[in-house]
Order: sequence, then structure tokens, then C-alpha cells
Amino acid sequence: MSTHVFDQALALTAQAEGDYLGASHPAYWNMVGPYGGITAATLLNAVMQHPKRLGVPVALTVNYASALGAGPFRVVAKPVRTNRSTQHWTVELWQTDAQGDDGVVTTATALTALPRTTWGVDEVAMPAVPPPSAVPPVPLFKGVEWIQRYEVRPVSGGIPRVWDGGGTTSLSQLWVRDAEPRPLDHLSLAALCDVFYPRVWLRRATQVPAGTVSMTVYFHASAEQLDATGTGCLFAQAQAQAIRNGFFDQSAQLWNEAGQLLATSHQVVYYKA
Amino acid sequence: MSTHVFDQALALTAQAEGDYLGASHPAYWNMVGPYGGITAATLLNAVMQHPKRLGVPVALTVNYASALGAGPFRVVAKPVRTNRSTQHWTVELWQTDAQGDDGVVTTATALTALPRTTWGVDEVAMPAVPPPSAVPPVPLFKGVEWIQRYEVRPVSGGIPRVWDGGGTTSLSQLWVRDAEPRPLDHLSLAALCDVFYPRVWLRRATQVPAGTVSMTVYFHASAEQLDATGTGCLFAQAQAQAIRNGFFDQSAQLWNEAGQLLATSHQVVYYKA
Repeated sequence: MSTHVFDQALALTAQAEGDYLGASHPAYWNMVGPYGGITAATLLNAVMQHPKRLGVPVALTVNYASALGAGPFRVVAKPVRTNRSTQHWTVELWQTDAQGDDGVVTTATALTALPRTTWGVDEVAMPAVPPPSAVPPVPLFKGVEWIQRYEVRPVSGGIPRVWDGGGTTSLSQLWVRDAEPRPLDHLSLAALCDVFYPRVWLRRATQVPAGTVSMTVYFHASAEQLDATGTGCLFAQAQAQAIRNGFFDQSAQLWNEAGQLLATSHQVVYYKA
Repeated sequence: MSTHVFDQALALTAQAEGDYLGASHPAYWNMVGPYGGITAATLLNAVMQHPKRLGVPVALTVNYASALGAGPFRVVAKPVRTNRSTQHWTVELWQTDAQGDDGVVTTATALTALPRTTWGVDEVAMPAVPPPSAVPPVPLFKGVEWIQRYEVRPVSGGIPRVWDGGGTTSLSQLWVRDAEPRPLDHLSLAALCDVFYPRVWLRRATQVPAGTVSMTVYFHASAEQLDATGTGCLFAQAQAQAIRNGFFDQSAQLWNEAGQLLATSHQVVYYKA
């Protein structure tokens, strides 16, 4: 069985405990660097691979401090605090740039915890939308590589067809999953949280340079819910809350087809205007 | 002029560049440690005091890795990446525990950026609610110290009067400001993002042990908006999205009286059940 392209892109080789070598993968290339979602998943993978890891991911914050380029990089994951049932992590991605300078390109913090079962409720219900089978997949941005790795079925808020400055909303809703089927896990869920194009493009119907500078993911999915989701579609929606002075935020929710809220995510995005 | 109690609580003494001494302040004491909001503001203050700081806060993520106790602590703030207009920070709070072990108690990452003026829009409008003058301030939790530092005017979703398991929503809305007037800045805005009591208490009308494990704040306020807000009230609302298996998330928005969205915030909270 061949390795899924997502797992190829995430692959890390341990040099020492918590110290890994990886490389940017061309299959997830964005305009000027790797897709932010694959970088988030790679940093989380360094935690998942760590021999001292306790439990499963609860929270992940990834800061895109500088442009990640093609070629090799180093990921260092450190459990800074281990409690009885929770563990706090710091992660850094280092890369040597074209000038030969080695520097921190991405930072992250993560929280893992032993799974527990408690009383619970979903407070945000999945909107009533047509099932994935009723929404045709749309080939988006044929020139961008990472988009080809996903099957995207836009329900609302697709990329504007005309850039006329006439936008009225920043809400996008879509069904999405790996184009090549792969059972959902925390890594692919983290990557999917970054699947949305810049909200300012939609709200303003204007294409401007934009890039995520920090993303947080909260994982709500239990192992059973991940297993039950399998290779099914996720319903993903994202909306900006404030767009102002060069940065906007985005709030996102991802449900499985059964309507279970698997992850919530937020990011702040730099934009030019 | 005497120093405001909030500034007393945040006070840091530099030992070396980016290396500070501080101490837990009794005026912001919660049940078993300091109010999480004052800790968030203290870590941000280490960034604000740093001589190499570029710009103003855009994003802050604080991870409450272990219980912070009374007494002195050390805060180390490091600019890990400085770009032309943005700067990425890591911050750690260290404390020696009762057993004499020195360890990381809180971690944070932050993003600062040079202010710019661009096209913008608020995507989430402030709900139509009565003005602060029409909502009487309510003394909450007389036994908890930090609550006394705020003037709170609950609009909806106040702390349940009966714990009968009959809750139906996790939404709380309130007007809030420092009880002793202090002009709003990034530090007090960060602290206010943690002002909400645990969402699971409201949704389930059941009081269970709960504590924030990670909080992210996105700052949307410009210097002009902070100045215009001054000592006025903020309208703050928070709602859970998913409550499940020992953790829930919370999404929050804070507007000034003029209806400008000054900050959005998210947190994930541990709870027993």
C-alpha cells in the first residue's frame, strides 16, 4: 500500500527526542510557500510522534512567523509541562534561508490530554444544508497545487467570479475532504481548519495579498467520532468578525456528516489594502 | 497620583533584557490562584515593556499549563522573529513551587505589528441592548476577590440563581469596565477577555470545577479607538460552541459603547462532570 500524499507531506525523521527533520512537499504548495494547513499538521505531528506524549490533541496554536520555503526544515517539540491528565507543548520550526541564515519560521503551542467521557452538548448546530451528494465538487484555482489535494463542494460563499468590490458577506460554507480518501485524524482535521480562502476577498469582492499569521484549533472530536467520520465529508464554515487596519480574524466550525462538531478554529490574517 | 491596582498587579521589574520579576497580586485572586485575565495581561506586559518591541499587539495566546500560586514569579519574553512590520514573541512564566521545584507555569505566544490604516468593516455587529446606564451593576460572588475589581452590569446569562440542571443556553452578555476607572489599553482589554464565568455552569445550571487551559485574544482596536473608549464600559458576550468530554470552547466579542468591535477572543476550558 502506498503512503497517502498527506502523510508523505507530514513525514518527520527523528534526530533526537523531540527533534525532527522534515521538508516542504510540492503537493501542498500554495502561492509562495506551503499551504498553512499542512504546516500546522506538521507541527502537530511532531507532538504526536514524541515518545513522551500524553493523550490526544485538545488545542493547537500555530504562528506563521516568517515565510517557509521549499526544502528541508527542522521541527523541535518540547513538553514544557506534564500534569496528571494534561500536557503542554511548545514547538518550533527552523529553516535555513537562501542567505544561509538559520531562524525560527513557525512557532506553536499545543495541549494534549487523556481522553475522558463527560456530560456534553453541541452548542452550535450544523446549519441545514444539502448533503454532499447534492452539491457538485468544483475545481477551484487550477493553478494552486494544495487545492487539488481536497475535494471541495461549495455550498455558499464560493470565490467571487467578478472582483467588483460588491461583496456583502464574509461567510463561506463548503463540504470538504481529502481528494484521495484518507480516514480523518487529528492531523488532517488540523489541516482542514485552514482550508478557507481569505475572508476579505469575499467580503470586499476584491483580491488583495493576504496570509494567515496565527491560527488556533480546538479539537472536540473523540476517537470514536473520528473513526465514525472516516473518509466522509466535513461541513466547514468560516466567517470574519472584524476586518480592520491590515488584519482580520476568522471564526470557523467543522462538522461531520452526522452533524457532530469536530473542531472549532480561529485565525488572524494579514491583508494589504 | 497613586498607581491603579491593575498596574500594581502587572508590575514587572527587569532583571535583564526580556527577563522580569513579578508577583501574584492578592487584589486579583480567584478561587485557587490569580484571575486568568491578570496573568494574560502580565505576560503581554512583558512584551510591551521589552525594549526591542515593534508595534502593538495583534494576537495573544496564553496557555495555563499549571497552577500559578501566590508569591514571586519570573517572566521571560523573547522576540523570536522580527520582520519589517510584524514581530513574533514567545513568553514563559516560571515559578518555584512549594516543593522548591522551578518550572514553567504559563506559556504564551504573541504577535505585534506596526499600526496601519486600511479599508475595513465590522462583520459582527453589536447586539441591540440597553445602554450601561439602564442596566444596574450587580455585585457578583462577594467571596471572590478579582470580581470586585470590575463593575459588571449583566444584560443576559447571569450566574444561575438555582443550580437545578435546567440550563438552555451558554450565552452571557454584560457591560463591564474596571471598577476603579482606568483608560482602556491593550493590557486591560486582554484581561477583560477572560471575564466570563465557565459556560458549562450556565448551559447546564450546574456548578462543576472548571478552569481555562488556553486563551487567544485578537486585538482589533486602534490607538484612536482605545483613546475614544477611555473609561467607558465594554459590551462583552461569550458563548460555548462545543461542550464535550471534559473540555469546552468559548467564543467572545468585546465592543465599546460606540459599537466598535475592539477584541475577539476564544478559550478552551477544562471541566469536571
